[in-house]
Amino acid sequence: MKTKLFSAYTNSISNALRDPGILNRNFSKAVNEDFSDFTGSRRKTIALSAQVEGIEETIGIKPLRDLLGITRNVVPTYGDHPDFANIRFTGGSEKHYIVSCFIDVRKSTNLFKEYKNYNHDQIAAVIQTIQSAAIHTCSLFNGHIQRLQYDGLFVYFGGKGISKSEAVQNAIDASSFFTYFIKYELQDVFTDNGMEEINTRIGIDFGDDLDVSWFVFGVNECSELTTLSLHTSLAPKMQANARANGTVIGANMVTQLPELHQYASIIKDANGLENRYIFTQPNYTQFAFDWESYLVNKFRFVERDGNTISINYNAGVAATVAGDAELFNIASRSKPYANG
Amino acid sequence: MKTKLFSAYTNSISNALRDPGILNRNFSKAVNEDFSDFTGSRRKTIALSAQVEGIEETIGIKPLRDLLGITRNVVPTYGDHPDFANIRFTGGSEKHYIVSCFIDVRKSTNLFKEYKNYNHDQIAAVIQTIQSAAIHTCSLFNGHIQRLQYDGLFVYFGGKGISKSEAVQNAIDASSFFTYFIKYELQDVFTDNGMEEINTRIGIDFGDDLDVSWFVFGVNECSELTTLSLHTSLAPKMQANARANGTVIGANMVTQLPELHQYASIIKDANGLENRYIFTQPNYTQFAFDWESYLVNKFRFVERDGNTISINYNAGVAATVAGDAELFNIASRSKPYANG
Repeated sequence: MKTKLFSAYTNSISNALRDPGILNRNFSKAVNEDFSDFTGSRRKTIALSAQVEGIEETIGIKPLRDLLGITRNVVPTYGDHPDFANIRFTGGSEKHYIVSCFIDVRKSTNLFKEYKNYNHDQIAAVIQTIQSAAIHTCSLFNGHIQRLQYDGLFVYFGGKGISKSEAVQNAIDASSFFTYFIKYELQDVFTDNGMEEINTRIGIDFGDDLDVSWFVFGVNECSELTTLSLHTSLAPKMQANARANGTVIGANMVTQLPELHQYASIIKDANGLENRYIFTQPNYTQFAFDWESYLVNKFRFVERDGNTISINYNAGVAATVAGDAELFNIASRSKPYANG
Repeated sequence: MKTKLFSAYTNSISNALRDPGILNRNFSKAVNEDFSDFTGSRRKTIALSAQVEGIEETIGIKPLRDLLGITRNVVPTYGDHPDFANIRFTGGSEKHYIVSCFIDVRKSTNLFKEYKNYNHDQIAAVIQTIQSAAIHTCSLFNGHIQRLQYDGLFVYFGGKGISKSEAVQNAIDASSFFTYFIKYELQDVFTDNGMEEINTRIGIDFGDDLDVSWFVFGVNECSELTTLSLHTSLAPKMQANARANGTVIGANMVTQLPELHQYASIIKDANGLENRYIFTQPNYTQFAFDWESYLVNKFRFVERDGNTISINYNAGVAATVAGDAELFNIASRSKPYANG
């Protein structure tokens, strides 16, 4: 059996499912290590991640980072998007494009089934590890974590100084690798432990500069810097239309990155009827996105293996993502996409 | 036509739908007033609420507050629940009951329909006003705002020093009055402006002390203090099962406050089939909650008016909520609920 790309996470989850004392033991360790941070203004959050072994970013995401040839530091950003945080103090709003990505994990309540008899520490370690994998993977592709929602995330891709096509590509890369983790690596751990299916559903859309307004919604400090945009609102609706381990993207994503068109197909419901439009007046198309073919075609180290896809660790280090993005952008410009 | 209970909010929304310059004008005013807050460490968030006239808490919620006889200050709390915030610095977890309430507003994307031609400032003012009504109403009943999600909210009710039955009752009161606002007052404004239906769906459940663990999920400062509980996870699933302007509650809510039983009925799907269990193994029942009958029976100033309910401003000031809660608790204790 091949080494898993996300083995640090799957090992953590495997341990959590088998060991009722998973957090107690790790927590003692974390407390000793971090004790200097406990006092005064220097005290910092001790998130649950510090209590689950093996899911630090530097360890967890290392295999993927190495295959991609990414060497920069990966530090998750959360809450106010740094490029627009000034609105908190100036008031008003600002128009700027963004990619909105909603990631949901389904069936995690199965961990509460009575015949499983997992304690809360075990379930928390599982959820924390899945969430860490999502945060790390999105951060690796420059995503900004807008909201944490237990085992779900709302992530922005893009901002000032990032090209629109690069933001779209980052969202596609992050979501595709995260779905790879859930479908091809995490599922095995659950099956090994007699658990039912766990899966993810993702909805992503791009809103252009004139279609996205950044506002601070809320009351005084009970507020959130976020985007008002039809496309931010449609992304969770697309998520709800995704199949198990599926991704649904808006037509704007394809317009920004025409290469995505070959992986985009009209959604059909259980009766084979087309569910083309996620919104009408104006009509706006949603597409099921074939992230497996995308990964195989784009990344040398992802290979088709019968009906599944897998990682070939002997494929050599890829060009850096920055380099890939550059090539992608040139290709985009030379093949304008005319079918809307 | 009677004065609306939430008229400050409905007037704001009415103005926003008619006036493309709604925010520009108000924002100039807000900036002048708040300019002293702009510099250095004293600078504070200027949330959008400061830019929409008439939705300050002291104005917006005053009619309901007066009818309820509530005199204390209402200050929304957000993010880390104050009773459990210490976990950020100590690590670990804590077990403590909580009521989890998910409020969603549906069909708000209709504001983006091309034939409406509202600009982003108008749509933002509408969303901000609906969100303010939700935040103010939940805060009036001691809710703690856990997450803002554009026009949706995740709110906790309860904490240390609050009895379980009072927390349940607060969640029911807040959600019932908010749904009253949407169904009986906001809908008129939308209809007057040729808009399609807008509605809310709410899911609420109670998790007892041993069934709720408070954890800081996430990675370092990219983290959220939240609850791991089957009942927190089931509340949004119940929300998804609610009808337009409907509330679905978990069986634990009825166990904690047996008086709710008379308003609780088994959910039926479009084909009349019962959809009793929101979770199996262990079986756990969800109920559609008849918030209209609840409001009429509980509050002297809410009256049945044919097929609808309405506010009678001449009914006199009710006993304070604290007083009601006291009576309620005594009633609960004297009528133990035996049907699970």
